[in-house]
Amino acid sequence: MNFNSADAITISTAVREGKVSAVEVTKTALARIATRDDQLNCFTAVTAETALTDAARIDREIVQGNHPGVLAGVPFAVKNLFDIAGLTTLAGSKINAENPPATQDATAVAKLKQAGAVLVGALNMDEYAYGFVTENSHYGATHNPHDLQRVAGGSSGGSAAAVAAGLVPLTLGSDTNGSIRVPAALCGVFGFKPTYGRLSRAGVALFSSSFDHIGPFARSVQDIATVFDVLQGEDDRDPICTKRPPELVLPQLKQDISDIRIAIAGDYFTKGAESEALAAVQKVADAIEVTEYVIIPEAHRARAAAFIITASEGANLHLEKLRLRPQDFDPATRDRFLAGALIPSSWYLQAQRFRRWYRDRVREVFQNVDVILAPTTPISAPLIGQQTMNLDGEEILVRPHLGLFTQPLSFIGLPVLSVPIHRQNALPLGVQLIASPYNEALILRVAAALEAKCIVQHQ
Amino acid sequence: MNFNSADAITISTAVREGKVSAVEVTKTALARIATRDDQLNCFTAVTAETALTDAARIDREIVQGNHPGVLAGVPFAVKNLFDIAGLTTLAGSKINAENPPATQDATAVAKLKQAGAVLVGALNMDEYAYGFVTENSHYGATHNPHDLQRVAGGSSGGSAAAVAAGLVPLTLGSDTNGSIRVPAALCGVFGFKPTYGRLSRAGVALFSSSFDHIGPFARSVQDIATVFDVLQGEDDRDPICTKRPPELVLPQLKQDISDIRIAIAGDYFTKGAESEALAAVQKVADAIEVTEYVIIPEAHRARAAAFIITASEGANLHLEKLRLRPQDFDPATRDRFLAGALIPSSWYLQAQRFRRWYRDRVREVFQNVDVILAPTTPISAPLIGQQTMNLDGEEILVRPHLGLFTQPLSFIGLPVLSVPIHRQNALPLGVQLIASPYNEALILRVAAALEAKCIVQHQ
Repeated sequence: MNFNSADAITISTAVREGKVSAVEVTKTALARIATRDDQLNCFTAVTAETALTDAARIDREIVQGNHPGVLAGVPFAVKNLFDIAGLTTLAGSKINAENPPATQDATAVAKLKQAGAVLVGALNMDEYAYGFVTENSHYGATHNPHDLQRVAGGSSGGSAAAVAAGLVPLTLGSDTNGSIRVPAALCGVFGFKPTYGRLSRAGVALFSSSFDHIGPFARSVQDIATVFDVLQGEDDRDPICTKRPPELVLPQLKQDISDIRIAIAGDYFTKGAESEALAAVQKVADAIEVTEYVIIPEAHRARAAAFIITASEGANLHLEKLRLRPQDFDPATRDRFLAGALIPSSWYLQAQRFRRWYRDRVREVFQNVDVILAPTTPISAPLIGQQTMNLDGEEILVRPHLGLFTQPLSFIGLPVLSVPIHRQNALPLGVQLIASPYNEALILRVAAALEAKCIVQHQ
Repeated sequence: MNFNSADAITISTAVREGKVSAVEVTKTALARIATRDDQLNCFTAVTAETALTDAARIDREIVQGNHPGVLAGVPFAVKNLFDIAGLTTLAGSKINAENPPATQDATAVAKLKQAGAVLVGALNMDEYAYGFVTENSHYGATHNPHDLQRVAGGSSGGSAAAVAAGLVPLTLGSDTNGSIRVPAALCGVFGFKPTYGRLSRAGVALFSSSFDHIGPFARSVQDIATVFDVLQGEDDRDPICTKRPPELVLPQLKQDISDIRIAIAGDYFTKGAESEALAAVQKVADAIEVTEYVIIPEAHRARAAAFIITASEGANLHLEKLRLRPQDFDPATRDRFLAGALIPSSWYLQAQRFRRWYRDRVREVFQNVDVILAPTTPISAPLIGQQTMNLDGEEILVRPHLGLFTQPLSFIGLPVLSVPIHRQNALPLGVQLIASPYNEALILRVAAALEAKCIVQHQ
């Protein structure tokens, strides 16, 4: 087993079967981080000591014959906006570094630990999750493992790059407008943003509450499904979290997908992208013989409305600090928050009004289709520092436009998996598999079928 | 029985007992409107023909021995933002006069008709309910029946003045920031704003959805209780309307009030008012031996936040028309809507955030008290056209400040009754009786006790 590319389930199976100890796995991960992370800059904190203690406890439980959990001995790390007891939750900011340490793990962190996973650290991100590049002015840029000159994407850049580079098989991130899916695509890993409200956000620093989701990065569909199942369930600490009983997805992965109606997102989602991004969608469609197109109406307006609400809610959340100490913000974040603070309330209200209309229209679309395919990003990873890109003959800014195809979907909380498409001598790309709310199982079944055909895979 | 001062229950009892016919009562009301309304300008439409038809039907039912309803033969009228089938719903605006007629009565109108009341017309108001004076530039000012040189208050000015002038014993209005209570106080009638969401708003033109309430104006506490009971109940047409089963208030009116903890609102509610407004509160307190004060914390901020949310939501609702035909708005309304359209979204969000905090604080206050007394307006009715007033030595604008004491209460949807205080050779004033949500019964029991002592009364 190569720990740099094995998925979490392979590792935990080996641990539970006694083929390798959790401590050995953890030491391997820590050594890999020590060797590689200077270049990559994925981690903002490595919790080596507690990780080894936790791993030793897992090993003892195995010796004692107790079930150590489905993720026994699997090293994982989380975007540094998840609370880790004893560490200060940075949320990518310099200002938050002055906060006291968290007293309690975020619910999602606690659940992964309960399932036997071993937390090894916290991961780099755009300040306050406001960005698509993880070029953080306080903690440095995270580098893309496939080309160190290039960005990892953001805002969960550290989470995606750590999995892609083989530092850990499993990470958590958050997605407001694409912050899980964009870096997953640019780094060539699976990144999953479930339905809004389906997973607890307790202990996670928020950016724009009505959009914020959490979700996993991993190297296989079964890992994504396993983590999703572990994280499901009601949480008293999070009033937004659904009261629905969990519906386990892992047991459904091997089901035939011939009953699932699949189509390609047309119109908006076929424009403004480099041909390679559209070719990636076509590759997926061909593999499962999908030829139909569906139109998600007014997606461009959904994106505009998402911008307005995000900037307004984000600015309001940070307003006091923006007034008192603007110099301590990342300039890229600060300037957008300040602009957000000046957005007229009537725009905000109009955007929320449109959102209700758009949710109803998209619900109608899903009466005729179950899963929709769309590119994740319009281009593969841009260079660190790259300001503009050329799309459809137009020179446009890189930073805001990496979310072109992700924003209209998170806007109404749809579940989306970005699956990795690897190509010979070229950077990876992602394709989004999109379903209606609470239909995560359909997405993951399609992804498993694509993975079985070797169409989508972690490299 | 003097129909110009009798309350609705007295009239309906007479009608049901055959002492007078519904047609006679209706003709009396129509004649009174014809004689007096040229001066008062309460009505924007008089539905004489359908009123007489409806009244004749009530009379036939009585002859046939059917129960014609608790409001049998009672003439009533509604603020012209309630839909009346066959009439265009003006909402005080010139632009809306171009709309087609409503096809269905508002739920509240339909319920009063079902209870036997006879609709005689629609009543003047501030344009789009945005004002406290009913000096409508399209349809003229409504005059205060106690002094024709003075305003009736607003925005439900026509509703208050019509009851005060004896044109009809019963009207409906709406209250966003004080639009029922302010005119009720200035005209010397009872005006009731129940808990937010307790009465259906279906078929009512909205102003600021998260604040808009409907409620009755009447000449007695039993009338207010009767109408409240008639209007209670779930409504499929209004998603905001509570699903709670109705709790009838009328049977509770005669209960002793010694178990009700009553206090006077201190601090904010004792400042910035003319001494006569505070004396009115004292008169009520003395009559029921109340000496305790309670503090509603941060009421001044609640008012500021109410302004921000109202202006934002109102501006958004009318934004298209503000862009296309600003010249067709009432200048006073237009300029505030335009300003509202420019309010930063971060202010709006902050106001909503404060609102949640304030709701929790006020809930704490109600752990120690059941009913709170406060002035309704800081002054008695100002002159029509009066721009400023002097409060606490400061010259301030009349129009926005008439809601000084009403806004902090509707802001969190508390039920409030404004009771009329009449004085020798002086204009009437109002005192607010305030309870926690869904405790309308406590308010109306206290009001009934005050009425029995002749402390509060319609003149």
